[in-house]
Amino acid sequence: MPSVDYTQQGFTSIRVNIDKGVAIVTLCRSNQRNTFVEATVADIVKAYDLFDRDDCVRVVLMTAEQDSPAFCAGAELSKGWGSLFTPEVEEEGDTFHRDSGGIVTLAIFRCRKITMVAVNGHAVGVGITGLQLPCDIRFAWAGTKLAFPFVRRGIAPEAASSYLLPKLLGNSRALSLFLTGATVTPDSPLLSGLYHTILPNREDVFPAALALAKDLAENTSMTAVAVSKALVWRGYDNIEEQHVLDSRAIRVLATGGDANEGATAFMQRRPPKFSDAPGSLKQWMPWWREVAVVPRKAKL
Amino acid sequence: MPSVDYTQQGFTSIRVNIDKGVAIVTLCRSNQRNTFVEATVADIVKAYDLFDRDDCVRVVLMTAEQDSPAFCAGAELSKGWGSLFTPEVEEEGDTFHRDSGGIVTLAIFRCRKITMVAVNGHAVGVGITGLQLPCDIRFAWAGTKLAFPFVRRGIAPEAASSYLLPKLLGNSRALSLFLTGATVTPDSPLLSGLYHTILPNREDVFPAALALAKDLAENTSMTAVAVSKALVWRGYDNIEEQHVLDSRAIRVLATGGDANEGATAFMQRRPPKFSDAPGSLKQWMPWWREVAVVPRKAKL
Amino acid sequence: MPSVDYTQQGFTSIRVNIDKGVAIVTLCRSNQRNTFVEATVADIVKAYDLFDRDDCVRVVLMTAEQDSPAFCAGAELSKGWGSLFTPEVEEEGDTFHRDSGGIVTLAIFRCRKITMVAVNGHAVGVGITGLQLPCDIRFAWAGTKLAFPFVRRGIAPEAASSYLLPKLLGNSRALSLFLTGATVTPDSPLLSGLYHTILPNREDVFPAALALAKDLAENTSMTAVAVSKALVWRGYDNIEEQHVLDSRAIRVLATGGDANEGATAFMQRRPPKFSDAPGSLKQWMPWWREVAVVPRKAKL
Repeated sequence: MPSVDYTQQGFTSIRVNIDKGVAIVTLCRSNQRNTFVEATVADIVKAYDLFDRDDCVRVVLMTAEQDSPAFCAGAELSKGWGSLFTPEVEEEGDTFHRDSGGIVTLAIFRCRKITMVAVNGHAVGVGITGLQLPCDIRFAWAGTKLAFPFVRRGIAPEAASSYLLPKLLGNSRALSLFLTGATVTPDSPLLSGLYHTILPNREDVFPAALALAKDLAENTSMTAVAVSKALVWRGYDNIEEQHVLDSRAIRVLATGGDANEGATAFMQRRPPKFSDAPGSLKQWMPWWREVAVVPRKAKL
Repeated sequence: MPSVDYTQQGFTSIRVNIDKGVAIVTLCRSNQRNTFVEATVADIVKAYDLFDRDDCVRVVLMTAEQDSPAFCAGAELSKGWGSLFTPEVEEEGDTFHRDSGGIVTLAIFRCRKITMVAVNGHAVGVGITGLQLPCDIRFAWAGTKLAFPFVRRGIAPEAASSYLLPKLLGNSRALSLFLTGATVTPDSPLLSGLYHTILPNREDVFPAALALAKDLAENTSMTAVAVSKALVWRGYDNIEEQHVLDSRAIRVLATGGDANEGATAFMQRRPPKFSDAPGSLKQWMPWWREVAVVPRKAKL
Repeated sequence: MPSVDYTQQGFTSIRVNIDKGVAIVTLCRSNQRNTFVEATVADIVKAYDLFDRDDCVRVVLMTAEQDSPAFCAGAELSKGWGSLFTPEVEEEGDTFHRDSGGIVTLAIFRCRKITMVAVNGHAVGVGITGLQLPCDIRFAWAGTKLAFPFVRRGIAPEAASSYLLPKLLGNSRALSLFLTGATVTPDSPLLSGLYHTILPNREDVFPAALALAKDLAENTSMTAVAVSKALVWRGYDNIEEQHVLDSRAIRVLATGGDANEGATAFMQRRPPKFSDAPGSLKQWMPWWREVAVVPRKAKL
């Protein structure tokens, strides 16, 4: 598949550039503090689904514009929470609504490439839960204010963050953050382990993240990455079953070109040139039960 | 429901005071170092079940008396572990006993309000596992000695701590603490993340915790709290299912008064006045399988 | 059962010495940087299965020779990953292979005694995932280089590390380590919580670990340890079920001699003398579903 022209996708809330295997996603509604609106959802879902299937994209890196007043100021609350619900939802009842934060979370989560985020400004609510938690690797500016205001607004944590944050950091930190409705900075002990790298100067966050992104795009195998992510998130809750699963993973990968290239390059003390694409895994992945999330109408 | 008169409940091991939506539970057997005895179990189970249903209680904060020689010195061992078992248990066999630490843990765990603990003195065994781990937010005095002596006494960790500690801190720290039978202080790297706040002076622990408790009682929604806690502890092991679940949570909450008040207060830059009570969620919660823990007799 | 003569087991990659209830396992292929070879697998599986059943062994401590250039330099890659597969595997297809790292992981993981490791030199890949992660308690030299190179070699993390590392440290750190293919030292924030103790001088690592090992061999109950480990790793995903389970654990242990001795020694302020062996638990353990991992041939 040839690479996509990301300038022709009709994105209005983001810009996408490709730089040596890295898809750079820039939130571009700085004037509105990148609040989370309908266009954000549509654009991110579309973009990450493309990245997932575009073999020219090996790493995705999201960030905000350098001079934006915020990375993402959260949901647009001027119309209240009720504006979340379409007339259709109102009619179909409690089980028909699908949280837009979670739709974004799942789009990023499903992407089989390495997903990174460079948080170079303040972030509130879904600006953390939907845009940061589903990523694999997070960079942040030390001065970023991060707010988890849910219980102080009469609402519960969304965007599948009640799934992700406990698994990322453990339940003790997750409950402290969710139930106090805290505003913290990335070096808070309550966030320990969430950010791969925290940088003192705002302007250094994106370049540092991009440098790692380019290293990973050049030196990691896409198939190895796709399998590694799935082993962590879609593994079994029993060590023996996981042993059987990862044995098969190694068997499948070792018969591909990338494993051979990886070992050969290592022996020859040169950088590897990986060429396998995730599509080659499709006979085996997904091995897990896929749960449909699109709601069905109860009424004709 | 009118608030309960907590002075008339016959408590002998604790005192309960209500202060602006905060139920303050003070362990009051300081002369016996607040050892964990039958009255402790009965009192805490009764108190936390009342707090759960009393709409005037928004936050629960447990502590010991300021001058107590210990927060809780653990189980009373003078009669050995055998004294744990009633004649009935002896007759009914291995599966009839229910650990009293776990009975306390479950009472605190089931409470849908924010549960806090201000650990202002030393704590041993069930003084950690039964009284601290099931709480949502923990404060501690930096000089507190915390002992996990189980394997050095010929016994295993109780009070469902083998469930809670791994989920709170991860298995690496949990196993180090359980298998070394360690005595540590709250700032030990082995406990990293367990305490929300650690304070150098003993006398500052309760006031600091109470200040947060009052803030939370005033500024958080009880329904949002109840749902948030349940999403973390009773969620699904699959992100798509959690997305469907939290979508419904948001839909249910957003149609209540607190979500509207939260958004409105935020837009008006004033503190919210929340009034929804957890009872309003009963058509939907619990959504999880409830497991009965009361043993059944095998013999007539 | 009398203690085994560990000098007569034909080990070629390890030496085993017993010192006051501690089985000391020394990786002894220093000239080959203790690379992970067939003999490593056979020796460790045999040794840890013996330790599991030898009532004279209460704690197992693995280390490398003091002057070894590495603790374990990982898999032997000179023949590529393809050399992992026997002709039999090639014939039987994707599901027949069993990863040798995972075979070692499971052998250590199954051992009901306290398992420790003193990492006194560099470790790569399976030298971490197979030799360190399944242990209960890890000591390390601060100067140790630890490499997780999988995705940079075209392969996924093996040895059930995609099960263990997330449960030990949480998914945020695990994904950062796995997907960046990082080389880090034990004090990296990405490893926070993995090592019980980190020591600045290489020569101090083994003595410090041995001192704790001897303390634990002398002062902990083998049955209490076996049950504690199983409660953490083989517990239930529901707190009420875990309460029923640990209640039974306490009932079973409290009727054994070690619990009585533990309480008595504590009251008499003397060290305990524990004598119960894990075999006494066999009517009750394992309580969990045991998953067979030996592959079955599809063809006659």
